[in-house]
Amino acid sequence: MASPFVHLHRVRYHECDAQGVVFNANYLTFLDVAMTELFRSVYGSYAEMQRQGYDWMVVDAHVAWKSPTRFDDELAVALVIERFGRTSMTTRFVQSVGERVCAEGEIVHVWVDVHTHQPVEIPLSAKQALAAHTAE
Amino acid sequence: MASPFVHLHRVRYHECDAQGVVFNANYLTFLDVAMTELFRSVYGSYAEMQRQGYDWMVVDAHVAWKSPTRFDDELAVALVIERFGRTSMTTRFVQSVGERVCAEGEIVHVWVDVHTHQPVEIPLSAKQALAAHTAE
Amino acid sequence: MASPFVHLHRVRYHECDAQGVVFNANYLTFLDVAMTELFRSVYGSYAEMQRQGYDWMVVDAHVAWKSPTRFDDELAVALVIERFGRTSMTTRFVQSVGERVCAEGEIVHVWVDVHTHQPVEIPLSAKQALAAHTAE
Amino acid sequence: MASPFVHLHRVRYHECDAQGVVFNANYLTFLDVAMTELFRSVYGSYAEMQRQGYDWMVVDAHVAWKSPTRFDDELAVALVIERFGRTSMTTRFVQSVGERVCAEGEIVHVWVDVHTHQPVEIPLSAKQALAAHTAE
Repeated sequence: MASPFVHLHRVRYHECDAQGVVFNANYLTFLDVAMTELFRSVYGSYAEMQRQGYDWMVVDAHVAWKSPTRFDDELAVALVIERFGRTSMTTRFVQSVGERVCAEGEIVHVWVDVHTHQPVEIPLSAKQALAAHTAE
Repeated sequence: MASPFVHLHRVRYHECDAQGVVFNANYLTFLDVAMTELFRSVYGSYAEMQRQGYDWMVVDAHVAWKSPTRFDDELAVALVIERFGRTSMTTRFVQSVGERVCAEGEIVHVWVDVHTHQPVEIPLSAKQALAAHTAE
Repeated sequence: MASPFVHLHRVRYHECDAQGVVFNANYLTFLDVAMTELFRSVYGSYAEMQRQGYDWMVVDAHVAWKSPTRFDDELAVALVIERFGRTSMTTRFVQSVGERVCAEGEIVHVWVDVHTHQPVEIPLSAKQALAAHTAE
Repeated sequence: MASPFVHLHRVRYHECDAQGVVFNANYLTFLDVAMTELFRSVYGSYAEMQRQGYDWMVVDAHVAWKSPTRFDDELAVALVIERFGRTSMTTRFVQSVGERVCAEGEIVHVWVDVHTHQPVEIPLSAKQALAAHTAE
């Protein structure tokens, strides 16, 4: 059973738009920050991941917005890696405030060489390090 | 045959991230700006749309990133309304630089009452005004 | 002697631009977040401040950039209130990574009525609550 | 007599915050875009400027906010170069909607080598190309 990786984000004033709610594109930004934190938990830092020769690129995302998020809400971004391909990785996410789901969906990253930006095989060590947050 | 509505966007420096390419979330922002311009072509202005009692909310989006966009590129955001539901509207988009596709996908908006934020039936006048950009 | 109020911010990927360093406007954003946290320390929350009838507006800022900040740096935003006017408040800030100063300057806020947005006298209770972070 | 360089910007939805007005940091962003357009008028493109070996960095800015800007307003960003130093350049700006001034101030850029990021003497050719927008 995978346990989600959870990143907490306090919603900032400028992340809300003139409707008073978080602007839709910002949910992808929160997701990006949460993914960075997930990798920090594996590699210690993004810099260390790059020193080992890896970077990743977003290639696909689906987001369903369920309810609004407002300034000063504490948004929990929960991640579970759904599956690993040879070079790609699909992650499910749920962004919620307390019990209320605000947005959910999937995002696909491809692992690339930090210099050439060409896809590379995901290292076994990374899969192992992420196992606790990976659906079987 | 629907003819796409096209909005041109010159990529700004701060829209690129440390990889030197447009940050993924910004494609949703460009899409939002293009949709606003599409509505301007119908209502004259967003303010006029609101005076008539309407607003819209994003409820779902899918984005597939195909190739990078860089600072100072002229990005064309092309939109075709795929279908109208009673209260929702699905729009296909392609964002490209010259012949090269950078991102594509669909986005779903729900029309809401500007005051209550509850879904409302899409007015026939809007469907008619958007007919040129609507797939049959 | 005023002790600075310090807010820590982990620099995010999208906050860096194509030069690989934090985009200049983002330092004002970091400052805004730090000011919000300062007010949280007084009122418990921004919502509580608004319930008491107050809001604030930025009217003036000066920023001197000293050295770059990069992705994943831990930026410390330190604030000291320099002086209170009747309706305005001047805050000095230093944003630094470790011992290295990245940006510094002053920002002036005016306290306004949350409904009319007209300037209001800064409540004594707020001055008292902020005394520890206020220069004599 | 210098004639200002003017860049027009249609305010976007996400550039407004929960107060319904443009977020303060965005005025620095609009200024950055306007400066880029100013340089485009000299070099044809930012890329061409870099090919010639130059880049620039913001080192100082002062902004005074005078009145709010709202979604869909057409903001005019007017620039006049106040003076050239050996490696730095001070530009005055006024951002306004119609006759109403929204923000004004100065910004200082240093010209740097595109590779080393060290300050370089501003080329005479650039000063000449910018003469029409330079205060004597």
